[in-house]
Amino acid sequence: MGFSFLPKEFKFYDLFEKQAACAVEAASLFKELVTKSAIIDSDALHRMHEIEHQGDGITHDILDRLNKTFITPFDREDIHSLAKELDDIIDMLYAIVNRMKTYKVNANDKNLIEFALIISESTHAVECAVKGLRDGKNLKSVIESCIEINRLENVGDTLRDNVLADLFETSKDPIDVIKRKEIYQAAETVLDICEDVAHVVQSILVKQA
Amino acid sequence: MGFSFLPKEFKFYDLFEKQAACAVEAASLFKELVTKSAIIDSDALHRMHEIEHQGDGITHDILDRLNKTFITPFDREDIHSLAKELDDIIDMLYAIVNRMKTYKVNANDKNLIEFALIISESTHAVECAVKGLRDGKNLKSVIESCIEINRLENVGDTLRDNVLADLFETSKDPIDVIKRKEIYQAAETVLDICEDVAHVVQSILVKQA
Amino acid sequence: MGFSFLPKEFKFYDLFEKQAACAVEAASLFKELVTKSAIIDSDALHRMHEIEHQGDGITHDILDRLNKTFITPFDREDIHSLAKELDDIIDMLYAIVNRMKTYKVNANDKNLIEFALIISESTHAVECAVKGLRDGKNLKSVIESCIEINRLENVGDTLRDNVLADLFETSKDPIDVIKRKEIYQAAETVLDICEDVAHVVQSILVKQA
Repeated sequence: MGFSFLPKEFKFYDLFEKQAACAVEAASLFKELVTKSAIIDSDALHRMHEIEHQGDGITHDILDRLNKTFITPFDREDIHSLAKELDDIIDMLYAIVNRMKTYKVNANDKNLIEFALIISESTHAVECAVKGLRDGKNLKSVIESCIEINRLENVGDTLRDNVLADLFETSKDPIDVIKRKEIYQAAETVLDICEDVAHVVQSILVKQA
Repeated sequence: MGFSFLPKEFKFYDLFEKQAACAVEAASLFKELVTKSAIIDSDALHRMHEIEHQGDGITHDILDRLNKTFITPFDREDIHSLAKELDDIIDMLYAIVNRMKTYKVNANDKNLIEFALIISESTHAVECAVKGLRDGKNLKSVIESCIEINRLENVGDTLRDNVLADLFETSKDPIDVIKRKEIYQAAETVLDICEDVAHVVQSILVKQA
Repeated sequence: MGFSFLPKEFKFYDLFEKQAACAVEAASLFKELVTKSAIIDSDALHRMHEIEHQGDGITHDILDRLNKTFITPFDREDIHSLAKELDDIIDMLYAIVNRMKTYKVNANDKNLIEFALIISESTHAVECAVKGLRDGKNLKSVIESCIEINRLENVGDTLRDNVLADLFETSKDPIDVIKRKEIYQAAETVLDICEDVAHVVQSILVKQA
């Protein structure tokens, strides 16, 4: 038979799974850092940078392959969006850790720990959703993962509102408010990006139905 | 004849008009809240949330229909952009009201009232532009609505500049500056999104010409 | 022969080169303003507004032509992205200067001068990359320009981190922190947008390979 579209198609699924695993790893490191560290030092930032760099490589591979492949397992624009959103999760986590180091904020912050737990759960659901794309039979589990990602985004919204209300109520130091407000809002944005991934996944499913 | 593309096409127009009406309603509630309320309480936020939820449903309907329909009344990417931008208008208005409640800012603020009036006018022009898409004969009125949306965006830019200059000049409380600066900039962003809607509408018109 | 696709194709290249030249001009004026001015007055803002207005005209021309042209020299979505990102460079530079006037910040700031130099270099590299698109033989120089744009974005990231760390460490005035933080972050964003241009250019090259 000497000719097959399948290898290329499988390769896309492989790469998306690698990218989703990378997002899970970034979220896991973020959780570790805010749970165990008092401050973010160069070592901590370097560890996150390694993951971010690895994620960039995978994203580049996907987009490069997309540009060179005529037949794709699902819509070209969906492949592009999915790669971009998964990359954005990792980039945003790196940006937060970098900001925390630059601003010298205390990493061991109960609000950040709460965000980190939700973000970690959401990236695990993202990984399930992305894995389910490969196997058409797991439709139900993909949909459940997407619902879970949406639920966690709502939980994150409420957390951000409570945390900001509390910050404005209790902090008397405007400089501290500026720093922490930016970091809490960025943490919530990670959950928004996970929700964007869920939207792309749902759009792929609908088209295949 | 038993077969027709028309029902599906009409349905898109119906849904876009519902979505634009929803944006008008959100802008109208925003105007009411900043004009009549001293503070944004849970009731006020709940009312805006209802509209936002309704808008989400319509957006979901449009994107779902888009994914399942082969023949569309205009370019697929334009349908996607138009649905997304109209949804963004409503989401941003909800986000502003939510922020006002969270930050406990005084709702009855002459700057916010001015923004609310411009936003209300702009959403009315958005509704006219969207309604005009259905009927090819109303080209002139659609173009006039788009010009009006662009004009209002410029008015909003100038208002934001004046309001921020004034805020920095007069407020001695940095925490107050942080809160109100974010809310004024978000109010101006609503007008930017209305302008994005006008761009999509104009792009649809050009392609149909 | 009476018939040719070439004129239309050439026109796209002409317009992109005009747009890139406009970005170079905006960056050059920005450098002049932060180097020579003590404050941004109406005259300075007006000069930047002229360039921004000219850039808008070119962007509109490209998008209009795109909507009316069936055969394009490269993918429609890439033409759209390239026009949008080049326009965003100019818009962001205008927004920074406008913000500086509104906030009455001191223009003659050593950090802004450093950003302005990097932005100017990056827009020159953007211009080289865009010019190279027309002539398939200059592939190597286009790739070198893209690498240079990526390098400058990294330089800008480090500069922003250092500048913000320093701002939080030394400024005791929260209002001053609010103003300058926003302006420094916006300056770094210009370099992010230049990098987005490089990504679009690279994607066009890969597809043509």
